[in-house]
Amino acid sequence: MELLKKRILKDGEIITDRILKVDSFLNHQIDPYLIEEISSAFTYRFSDQIFNKILTVESSGIAPAVMTGFKLSIPVVFAKKNKPSTMIENAFTATVHSYTKNSDYEISVSSKFIKKGDRILIIDDFLANGSAARALISIAEQGGAKVGGIGIVIEKSFQNGGKLLREMGYRIESLARIESMSGNKIQFI
Amino acid sequence: MELLKKRILKDGEIITDRILKVDSFLNHQIDPYLIEEISSAFTYRFSDQIFNKILTVESSGIAPAVMTGFKLSIPVVFAKKNKPSTMIENAFTATVHSYTKNSDYEISVSSKFIKKGDRILIIDDFLANGSAARALISIAEQGGAKVGGIGIVIEKSFQNGGKLLREMGYRIESLARIESMSGNKIQFI
Repeated sequence: MELLKKRILKDGEIITDRILKVDSFLNHQIDPYLIEEISSAFTYRFSDQIFNKILTVESSGIAPAVMTGFKLSIPVVFAKKNKPSTMIENAFTATVHSYTKNSDYEISVSSKFIKKGDRILIIDDFLANGSAARALISIAEQGGAKVGGIGIVIEKSFQNGGKLLREMGYRIESLARIESMSGNKIQFI
Repeated sequence: MELLKKRILKDGEIITDRILKVDSFLNHQIDPYLIEEISSAFTYRFSDQIFNKILTVESSGIAPAVMTGFKLSIPVVFAKKNKPSTMIENAFTATVHSYTKNSDYEISVSSKFIKKGDRILIIDDFLANGSAARALISIAEQGGAKVGGIGIVIEKSFQNGGKLLREMGYRIESLARIESMSGNKIQFI
């Protein structure tokens, strides 16, 4: 997706050769016009699939997920990082390892919102080691749902999450695939 | 907003006479069509105002904020509940007291994203005691911005946040104002 790649080159900040900061348009300040274009790209790329639900994780996945859900006319469920006090019923949970923060955290989805037979599109902002995506897949499969596709805004292809998930048979559509950020330069695949 | 009120009556769950659970359409599972209608209502109600930025707080404010930002063609900034590892620059912070959880937490916005002269529309899912709204106002004002309006999806008018903020001179537009939830019955103003 050219618009996204241009925006990454213009406004993305390389913090280390593994960490890209896109907080001016994607995960702190959000450009709704870009999000709308992102949702169009997901809709187009998965136009051969039928989904009845989108699953993402708070917080940065919510904006592209909701805009895509609007286009596909399907609900969006976002996994929570802390169980809210009002989530008293059963929940599906999974552990995510953050390599950036070097810590683990739990994500959970109320079991009300994942049903056997659901055909789920997972959406997230980043794919690096794939820990968050695998946790979302686990939650979907705990509920008996099938993951029909994974839509990623930015994939760091120099980390192995995308490769592993594709080898497991999941269909991943990443709108920008970064091959390298070494030498303070972003190279796309 | 009739569509929202009907949805609250249909799918909202009264947990106690002060806690309303709307996780099937607003803050865990999200109905993107409803969010779009909510954003239309905010756009209409604030059509006499000019804003250049929307400020909200993760996570439940993001969906209505981004959809409204798309309609108004302005960026959305969401305050973070935990400072991310990549937020290395200065930040404006404020403390929110959660009455539901009886605990305090900090929210923060990078100082890059609030500028003197900004005219800000605050959007959030709930207004009860007004602690989150006051924290967002504080963050906006720390940056020299002016809060031109506060758009709330559901106001619990039996708690005093809305009253206090209106007395302070803030313009609040709440799409559903709940007067009472006692007796297991929701009454709107």
